[in-house]
Amino acid sequence: MRYELHYWPQIQGRGEFVRLALEEAGADYVDVARRKGGMAKLQRLMEPKVSPRPPFAPPFLKTGALLIAQTANILLFLGPRHGLAPKGEAGRLWVHQLQLTVADLVTEAHDTHHPIAASLYYEDQKPEARRAAECFIRERMPKYLGYFESILAKGGKGSYLAGRTVSYADLSVFQVVEGLRYAFPKAMSALERKLPRVIALHDRIAARPNISAYLRSPRRIPFNQHGIFRHYAGLDAWQPL
Amino acid sequence: MRYELHYWPQIQGRGEFVRLALEEAGADYVDVARRKGGMAKLQRLMEPKVSPRPPFAPPFLKTGALLIAQTANILLFLGPRHGLAPKGEAGRLWVHQLQLTVADLVTEAHDTHHPIAASLYYEDQKPEARRAAECFIRERMPKYLGYFESILAKGGKGSYLAGRTVSYADLSVFQVVEGLRYAFPKAMSALERKLPRVIALHDRIAARPNISAYLRSPRRIPFNQHGIFRHYAGLDAWQPL
Repeated sequence: MRYELHYWPQIQGRGEFVRLALEEAGADYVDVARRKGGMAKLQRLMEPKVSPRPPFAPPFLKTGALLIAQTANILLFLGPRHGLAPKGEAGRLWVHQLQLTVADLVTEAHDTHHPIAASLYYEDQKPEARRAAECFIRERMPKYLGYFESILAKGGKGSYLAGRTVSYADLSVFQVVEGLRYAFPKAMSALERKLPRVIALHDRIAARPNISAYLRSPRRIPFNQHGIFRHYAGLDAWQPL
Repeated sequence: MRYELHYWPQIQGRGEFVRLALEEAGADYVDVARRKGGMAKLQRLMEPKVSPRPPFAPPFLKTGALLIAQTANILLFLGPRHGLAPKGEAGRLWVHQLQLTVADLVTEAHDTHHPIAASLYYEDQKPEARRAAECFIRERMPKYLGYFESILAKGGKGSYLAGRTVSYADLSVFQVVEGLRYAFPKAMSALERKLPRVIALHDRIAARPNISAYLRSPRRIPFNQHGIFRHYAGLDAWQPL
């Protein structure tokens, strides 16, 4: 059965973590809102009168009668079905735990440019964004990425976050590296020396045939100033501690 | 087997969502860090050299050899074991989706008093906190709580978020109401008129025997100015839209 992914059509955003899993799996899916009339479909499915279990926000995935929202929840569903999560419960919980940690990082990365409110323009919170970005770059970015580095250090060379095979958490860490490189190129350039395993993981994910083909395709939306990871030179002005 | 809950001993915080589930279930558990020497145990389990799968942050739950972190992930594990989640996959995903939406709300509620960085004092981000609280109270609080109200409106009188039986998501919405009443009493007082079903759910949860006993026990840590929900009069100065 064909999956319907519902997400904002102009950005990578949180939907990108789902797109990467679907692409790696070679799954049959349609990115609904990128097609003509798709935004109306997305909005309709969010109405409590239409959906038995309406989502609070995109992304959400429709498969048959099932409508699943929350990025990590969608990946929890897709993982075991497409070989992107371990079969056993302990392994599945571990991969989900890593994904939820990625989700926390992603929220903090977003909030560097919108520390006061997502509903206000960046231009209305620039001084606050500078303070937030400084703390994020100096403390949080090294802490999160250092955590993933320490997990990878526990495995052998060429291992993944959950062992010998790739999981959706590995795809998500790839995406985090991509996003942080776009948003904070100077800070990441300084930090990457301390993250050899995270960067090697990123490179191995990028080289996987399905991911590599996806990244070169028009299905991959380029980073831009509307997504979660945004580049404002004024926010890339510190060095990680 | 006795569960070991590891969380900061002075606050309700994110650990409270786990405590409520364990209490409702009548589970055998110990709140490790509230005992003598418990903080050292908590910190030790976070070390990559000690734990095969170390958590990024508390709360985490230890049961046998399994160490599970991330609040929603812990509840995903506990739910079906203690009758706090539906048995079928669709129902379990739905309850988890609701919990992840609660988690987003909780992060935004926290960030009203720490919009720039969790590592800075509130006193160092007071003007920013006022702006953040205004947006949260006027837009986000009504949006989130209105969402849960609309879900409850789909069921009959006395129903829960996932149908006829209580789930961990219901306990979590109870806790959100408690927290928002503590942090923003004026704003909540104005908003509650529009949330009859959410408030009725809160009251039914509070009256459940195990929850009621827990709330009156010394195991329930009072709200305070160190947790996620904090009361600063200057931040409770707007009305929900």
